[in-house]
Order: sequence, then C-alpha cells, then structure tokens
Amino acid sequence: MITWQEAHRSILDQAKPLPLQIGPISSSSLGAILGDDVLADIDAPPFDKALMDGFALSGDTSAQSDGWPLGDGVYAGGIPGKALEPGYAVPVATGAPIPTGADRVIPIERTEKINGLLKVKELPGIGDFIATKGADYKAGDTVLKRGTVLCPSVAGALAAVGKTALRLIPAPTVSVISTGSELVEPNMKPMGGQIRNSNASMLLSGIHRAGCLPKYLGIAPDCAQALRNLIAEGITHPVLILSGGVSVGEKDLVRATLEELGVKIIVHGIKLKPGRPFLFGITPGGGLVFGLPGNPTSSLANFDLLIHPALLALRGYRNPGPHFQVARMEESLIVDNNRPTLRPVSVCPTNFGYIAYDLGAKGSFELGVLTRAYGWLELAPGRVEIQKDEEVRVLVPELSAVTALLLQTT
Amino acid sequence: MITWQEAHRSILDQAKPLPLQIGPISSSSLGAILGDDVLADIDAPPFDKALMDGFALSGDTSAQSDGWPLGDGVYAGGIPGKALEPGYAVPVATGAPIPTGADRVIPIERTEKINGLLKVKELPGIGDFIATKGADYKAGDTVLKRGTVLCPSVAGALAAVGKTALRLIPAPTVSVISTGSELVEPNMKPMGGQIRNSNASMLLSGIHRAGCLPKYLGIAPDCAQALRNLIAEGITHPVLILSGGVSVGEKDLVRATLEELGVKIIVHGIKLKPGRPFLFGITPGGGLVFGLPGNPTSSLANFDLLIHPALLALRGYRNPGPHFQVARMEESLIVDNNRPTLRPVSVCPTNFGYIAYDLGAKGSFELGVLTRAYGWLELAPGRVEIQKDEEVRVLVPELSAVTALLLQTT
Repeated sequence: MITWQEAHRSILDQAKPLPLQIGPISSSSLGAILGDDVLADIDAPPFDKALMDGFALSGDTSAQSDGWPLGDGVYAGGIPGKALEPGYAVPVATGAPIPTGADRVIPIERTEKINGLLKVKELPGIGDFIATKGADYKAGDTVLKRGTVLCPSVAGALAAVGKTALRLIPAPTVSVISTGSELVEPNMKPMGGQIRNSNASMLLSGIHRAGCLPKYLGIAPDCAQALRNLIAEGITHPVLILSGGVSVGEKDLVRATLEELGVKIIVHGIKLKPGRPFLFGITPGGGLVFGLPGNPTSSLANFDLLIHPALLALRGYRNPGPHFQVARMEESLIVDNNRPTLRPVSVCPTNFGYIAYDLGAKGSFELGVLTRAYGWLELAPGRVEIQKDEEVRVLVPELSAVTALLLQTT
Repeated sequence: MITWQEAHRSILDQAKPLPLQIGPISSSSLGAILGDDVLADIDAPPFDKALMDGFALSGDTSAQSDGWPLGDGVYAGGIPGKALEPGYAVPVATGAPIPTGADRVIPIERTEKINGLLKVKELPGIGDFIATKGADYKAGDTVLKRGTVLCPSVAGALAAVGKTALRLIPAPTVSVISTGSELVEPNMKPMGGQIRNSNASMLLSGIHRAGCLPKYLGIAPDCAQALRNLIAEGITHPVLILSGGVSVGEKDLVRATLEELGVKIIVHGIKLKPGRPFLFGITPGGGLVFGLPGNPTSSLANFDLLIHPALLALRGYRNPGPHFQVARMEESLIVDNNRPTLRPVSVCPTNFGYIAYDLGAKGSFELGVLTRAYGWLELAPGRVEIQKDEEVRVLVPELSAVTALLLQTT
C-alpha cells in the first residue's frame, strides 16, 4: 500500500486544468482563473484627472497673494469647455478631468473663499493631486496576466478595460454516486438495517466549497446493472466520486464495474487512518474517478486531503495543496495508530496563532464529533505523545484553499 | 471625524442577524448559520454496526482453537435473519448490522480460512469493532446547536437525522448603485470625460465573496429624480451600497436624497486613508446603507474593512471581523500619512508565516496595483518606518472570513 503523499502525486499528475471556456464575467466568476493575458484598450485614467475634491489652479502662483479668481466649474463627467487661464482657479471634483491649462489641484480643505476670491494655504507643487492620463496603465499594456485569480479588484480591472467576457478555466462538474442497498435518502425513515445517506450531502457541500459544481446522481443499490448505468453517466463529467463500496470484503462491484467501463485504477488503498480503502482512477476520456469508504469520517478525510486539492488543480490553481497550518495543542494527547492518521480536531484562531482542540474521537463512525471538528490533526504512525502547547500540523480545508489562492497571486 | 474602529462599532450595533427563514438544505447553503438546535430523530447508529470488514463472532472464544465454523453472511442493508449461535462466525461488511448473539468483530486481515473454518489471529475483546446502537447519538439528542455553521460535516449530519429543510439565517441581498454622470457601463467605450464603471463589478464580486446575494441597480447620473428612484428601490433590500457621490465638494445629492427618503446618517467621514468619505446610515426599516468614495482603492478599502464584517454579522456570524493577520515585511518601508492608513500589499504564505510585499502604491487611483494586492497593510498615522522582517498587521478578507468561521465553531 502506498502513502497518501504518493497517492497525492499520482492524482496531481492527472488533475490538469480544464480546457479554457469563454464566458461572461459575473460576481459568481469569483475564484476562477484567467485563461489569457488581458490588455488595456484605453489609457487609465483616460484623461488628466483630479485626485481630490478641490480646485484646479493654473499658472504662476506667486502672483495670487490676494486670492484666486474663479473660472467655470468642471464636475466629473463634464468635459472642460475651455482652457483655464493663468492665475485662475476652478472647482474640480475627485475623478473629474483637469481643465487644459491647469497644472495642479489643491484640496478643498486647504482653501477658503473670501470676497469671491480663493485663498489657499500650503500651495501644492506642480502636478500635485493630478493623475495624468495613462499613469495607471496605457492602451495596449497588459493589466492582468493569465493565471490571475478573479477576485474583486480583478473584476474591477476587467470592467475598467471593457472585458465583459473572456476565457476562464471553468469549474468542473463533479458527480456523486452513493453505493449500497442499505442506504435511503435523507427524507426517508430508515427501517431494519437501513441507514440514511449522509455522505452524499457532505460531499456535495465539500464540492461546492471547492468552487466546483456538484451533481448528485443518486444511490446505486448492490446490483451490477444499476451501478453500471449510474457510473456510465458519472464518467461523462470531469470528476466522479463514488461513496462506499471500495473496502476490501465489500462486494467489489464498484471496482469491477469501473474497470468494465474502461476506468484505469491508479490507486486503491493508502496508508491512512481513516480512509484506507481510497480509490483513484482515470476514465478513457481523462476524467478523474474517486472511490471513498462509506463512513463519514473516512470519506471526509479522503476528500479534504486528496480530492479538494485535485479539484483546485482542475480549476487551474498551481499550488492546490493540501496546505497544512502550524497549530499548538491545547492539551496533551497520547494516541497509538498503526498508520499515518488524520484526527478530527477543532481549530481556534487566537492572537498567538492557531490552537488545536482534540475532540476525543474514538472511531470513524462519529458524525457527531465530525460536526464539531474544523480540521484534521496529522499524526505519524505508532505511539505519539503530544505535549500541551506543542506545535502540530493541522489541515483546515478553508485555510488550505486561501493559501492556494494567495500562492497563485504572489 | 471618527476613527474606523468607532465606525465599525456603530455598524455592528446595527448589523443584526436577519430573521430566520425556513428553506431546503443544499450544497449552496454552505456557510449559512443554523437558526435552531437540531435533534436526532433516530439513534445513530440505528443498530449495532460493524466498524470493519471482517467477521462477527459469538460466544466463548477459548473453545475455538481449531477455527470457527461459518454462519450465514450479512451485508450492509441486509437484516440479520436469525441469531448467531455461540461458537460461530459470520462475515460482516463495514456498516452492516451485527447479528443478534455476536459480541465482537474481527477485521478480515486478522483471519484466514482453513478447511472451511475461520482461523483468527489476535482475537479482539468483547465489543471490539462494533459501534453499538445510539453510540454516536440517541433519538432526541441535540446533534447540532443553533449558531452552527453549515459546513460539509454539518450537511452530512443534517442528512443523517432527516433534516432536509430547516430554519437558517438567510444571506442578505445587497443592492449596489453607482453614481456619477461620468460613468458608462463596462461594455461601452468611454468618450470625453467619461470613465467605465469598474467599482460596481468589484463590489458585486466582494458581496458574493461575503456569501451574500449581489443585486446591481445601475448607474445614477447626477440627477435628483433618477438617483431618488434608484435609492428608493435599493432601500427595499437589507443592504444598499452606493458607490461615489459621498465626498465633500461633490454635489451632495447622495446624502441629501438618502435623508429625504428617511435614511438616518450615522457615520459620514472616518479617519482613514484611503476611504475617508465613507458614509453609513440606517433606513426606516432597519436596513443598512453604505456610501463609498468613487475610486477603486478607497472603495475596496472601505468594503473590506467595514462592509465585509457587516455582511458576515447579518449572516449571523458572532465574530465577523475584520480579523487581521500577523505578517512580516519582505523589505523595509517608509511612509508618511496624515491618517491611519490601509496600504495594498501582496501577502504570501510560507512555512514561517505570512510575508507582506509592498507594491509601491502611490495614489488611490491605481487599479493596476490593486489587482496585484491581496491584503491591506495597517499603518499608524504619521511617519512610519518598518524594518525588513518586522511584524506588521495585514487584513486579507478571505482569511478574515475563515477566522470568523472558525471562531463561530469553537
């Protein structure tokens, strides 16, 4: 059996950014990665522009000891009709074009009007409080590079250069199939040996959190034909996640059916607790297929550690993680595991860094514990003694995603 | 003029969680806060359940030195038909009910079949690898507390207890109006003194990032009637953001129109660079109204520092921020500002914490710099000399949001 790090490398070798798609830019494009460099079509600012509310002044200043006579006003959006004559002042608003002839702006707070003349305090230097045409960028300049993450300021810059549609790396659709005749949907009351399907809801939410498009295909009972039909539909999407049916000793329908449909199994089984039965394969079309164990903790551990980074990689993130954080243990902890372990912990941010709280998780079935967890404590195999305040490594999927985003940007 | 911290307190005094709304749970409910405690309707597990693939064993173990004869198989979902007789073993799959009479499970790896008998190594203790009925939680137990953030594991727990709809704190609709006769929409080519409206796209993206529902109402030219109509529509939503028209010296239409429509202005002007003209008011119905300066950097600084936390507060987050992070400056920096300052920087995560890179921002008009920034460096007023490697405080909106989420959970 391979380590999770080896599985991770095999997955990232296959998880290449999806082909670019042209699409309109909207607020829900947030987090998408630009597929092309973006060039400015006009200068910014498009004219010499006032940076403060105040007055544009023209000409030699030493002459105006009594104050400046006022010319006509120019508001933002108005086009200055005539040149400002030397010795005159004219009111300007932030963002407004500077009239021809004006060579500086004085903020309104440094002025006073006395007998119709503008008295000025602390006269600014030539060019002060003016943004000259093209000072931010010039027509033809590259304002955004391919690979940039679409964040609010980037959305603003795209608008500024008139790009209302462009090529982005699209978010993949990720299909989910739950397997097992014992499962019923959450709106049903389980009878006898049945249990509600909680994993699908958890995975769909995790897929959404990774910025992808979740698509639930339903429950496959332990019946070859039903499973085959669902998998055949699932592998038409860039990613398929199967929940359940991958453990040794289970009826092995999942793996057999995947192989029948041409999926090449690359990983099956990793040295990890929980989440050992993890399966990873590739469809004939290059799509990714993941098989997760049926119990919630194992399933989420596999998802956060291995699938979440794969989804970010498909979205074009160069450093998709998993990115662990340093935290300190709130209390001492002794554990003994035969495999490398992810233990659910809660992670609290403080002024002195993150604190990890152990939740006393006893088995992999504890969905109750999992809802109070917000991270995974990484533990080496064997007997591990962690002292109070000792530094540990924790994986918080949201922080890992922000790290991926910041690394994309810098 | 008040400090931004005072403005922040005034805003959070008014930004109360929106009234609960019942709604279906889906993957896009991610990040919403539960409005009620959630009780289990059934025990979990609903029956004594196998935690491993292997064999359930029954009875006195010392007798079986030759190996265990096998009973009938029980797979997950199958209902055990009859009690397992003492001295017999029966195959069980992870998650399957344990047959009556069985008192322990042995993992398949610790067994071997010889002559139709099961030979076992390291016999487990009584109860091992069995999750007893109700061990995770019992019918009637509170499995999720009011105030819990809907994350993947919570989505799983809701499914497990059959909650497919429940009361959540809804995400507010946030309307955006851009003001100024000089503005044209991004798909237009600006002429003369016109500029493209980049702020609306930026703000809509920021609203989406805060988990809220952006609603763009359009550009209001400098015309009282047009502005009044748009504002009247805007204040029907829980939040209205106006971009532009709040600086001293501008035509003051925005503030006057807001007051005419019954908006009580609580903050107008804060000691901050950029973003001094910031305005905050309350509608007669208790909605929040924000006025931002027209230039992108000022607008985004106000948004990230003051509006983003307000939006999280409306969504029910108890610690909505802004949460600053400690970073180290990559290079020395000398700046001199007359007000407390937020300076756009890029923030890079490393194994040794965050590193802040100054981007040489010169004015508040630089959208180009802003797209390379991913955070704000907080600077005290006056001359500030920061040494290379010195600790500074930076605001990264995404990290601030994750901190709010983690603090909600712990």
